[in-house]
Amino acid sequence: MTLEEQLKHKIDFKTKPLGALGLLESLALQVGQIQNTLTPELKKPTILVFAADHGLADEGVSPYPKEVTWQMVMNFVAGGAAINVFCRQNGINLKVVDAGVDFDFPADAPIVNAKVARGSRNMRREPAMTSEECSLAVQKGCELVKQEAANGCNIIGFGEMGIGNTSASSLLMHRFLNIPIEECTGAGTGSHGEQLTRKMQILKEVSEKYDPKTPEETLATFGGLEIAMMVGSMLEAREQGMILLIDGFIATAAALTAIRMNPEVRDNCVFCHSSDERGHKQMLEQLDARPMLHLDLRLGEGTGAALALPLVQAAVNFLNEMSSFESAGVANKE
Amino acid sequence: MTLEEQLKHKIDFKTKPLGALGLLESLALQVGQIQNTLTPELKKPTILVFAADHGLADEGVSPYPKEVTWQMVMNFVAGGAAINVFCRQNGINLKVVDAGVDFDFPADAPIVNAKVARGSRNMRREPAMTSEECSLAVQKGCELVKQEAANGCNIIGFGEMGIGNTSASSLLMHRFLNIPIEECTGAGTGSHGEQLTRKMQILKEVSEKYDPKTPEETLATFGGLEIAMMVGSMLEAREQGMILLIDGFIATAAALTAIRMNPEVRDNCVFCHSSDERGHKQMLEQLDARPMLHLDLRLGEGTGAALALPLVQAAVNFLNEMSSFESAGVANKE
Repeated sequence: MTLEEQLKHKIDFKTKPLGALGLLESLALQVGQIQNTLTPELKKPTILVFAADHGLADEGVSPYPKEVTWQMVMNFVAGGAAINVFCRQNGINLKVVDAGVDFDFPADAPIVNAKVARGSRNMRREPAMTSEECSLAVQKGCELVKQEAANGCNIIGFGEMGIGNTSASSLLMHRFLNIPIEECTGAGTGSHGEQLTRKMQILKEVSEKYDPKTPEETLATFGGLEIAMMVGSMLEAREQGMILLIDGFIATAAALTAIRMNPEVRDNCVFCHSSDERGHKQMLEQLDARPMLHLDLRLGEGTGAALALPLVQAAVNFLNEMSSFESAGVANKE
Repeated sequence: MTLEEQLKHKIDFKTKPLGALGLLESLALQVGQIQNTLTPELKKPTILVFAADHGLADEGVSPYPKEVTWQMVMNFVAGGAAINVFCRQNGINLKVVDAGVDFDFPADAPIVNAKVARGSRNMRREPAMTSEECSLAVQKGCELVKQEAANGCNIIGFGEMGIGNTSASSLLMHRFLNIPIEECTGAGTGSHGEQLTRKMQILKEVSEKYDPKTPEETLATFGGLEIAMMVGSMLEAREQGMILLIDGFIATAAALTAIRMNPEVRDNCVFCHSSDERGHKQMLEQLDARPMLHLDLRLGEGTGAALALPLVQAAVNFLNEMSSFESAGVANKE
């Protein structure tokens, strides 16, 4: 029997009706396949939160001022953000990464300094990143994940903070999936009515201005420093045989980009939740993903990944700990 | 300000876009209201799993033999069932209650003996319970929850095990919601094709045989001993101001029954998941419930409640631990 068949057999003969654990069963199968074992284990779960500023924020695509990016990073450092709360609760190691925030953080703050620039460029005028900036961000992301793997982590989530980054993600989605930009553009942190119309107009203008060909060019043109660093992290996490916990709209846009660069990344992705952000459901469908949670979250930071971890743990635990019909002396179907 | 207004204000000024934590925000509001405080706390989370046999199982409504009820109870006792795994993982106190299993369990097994009878009666011939049996089951359920409350538990989940109990639940749903029995009848543990057709025919026949008037009569006619004991537990849990974690199809049918007896029970119910069992979604809609998880579970035992607990904890934790815009020095929307 192949490992897949052995895993399916193990799952099917647990003391429960066939298929009765639903998505947890597919998850157990996936995790077993990623780790190439019948007895998988989650080690040192970690979430990296990548923060960066976006030049496009100057155009008013978000109702929040750009300063919220660094202010929220300081909030992460102080332990007061939603991602802190959920990581503490679920035993997740949280690391905050400055991928490109337009602020000088105190030297003693527990922030991983991976700053490539003080924010991406204003796409209305020029591509978000030069190809050098984008490559450097990708490379730094790889290095960070190599370190986590060396520390013994085998399951990693990706979060982000960056005022303006739903705009970048909408553009990536639009470009990679060939879906009209209007269908890819949503409220973000809270754009409605006129503000949303303005956001859409700007994104339409930006989308028509460039014609990048490769996934790398597309990322450099429409992405952001935190998104590029996330892409690099995801690529490396796949190389390391890790489980990738994909959060909401922005992390999914990064995953889509990484998958375009290396389709095998898809095999290691657990899509944690279906967010309330317009476009996310469609992106998930295109990736043939069935997300774990449907809580109408639209916060980012990796919160969906942190909240989904107990379900991944549950999938691993039932596979390892549940008795079989035979071992428990329970009669199977007549 | 009323408590509701104060809770909403507290939630709205956390460092996140308005409403960005989705269902967790409504959950935080509900838990605060149940506990009548701005700083709720979950204490000694407990799941009671009620087991009983069903006379109707003799008619072949389930593909599993009746003996699976006691065999699975022994599996719970040995710690090898899915509910054991998930309770261990999430720090939940698990108690297994014999409400009416047709088996003599070893005296030293850690099972709460609340046996009312050796199973309910065959509804094809007579009502499932006499009114005395049903009242006794309800009363024993009340007493069990009083004990848990006295032990300091303030959040309680309800699970069940009983071959044949989706049939009883379909009949309760049909009767209380006035929905055709066919739409209330699903695969249960795995009835398909001819077996499902037969199950539907039997349930149709049973539904036409009786005309109970009150919720109590309906429960006695179509319920089961574990369902009646669950109803009693739910009624008492509301009296005790507990949070009620409602699992899947059978627990929801019990909750529906309890709500018909005391509509205030609804306020304390957290509907944990939307199961794959036909009829469950419709029952949830009729109860105006938005379930926490959508994992296509159809196992029962309280597994959905056990898996949802970390989300309830997350709702409580963000309410208590997240910083506000003001305290964190983060700018709010422009």
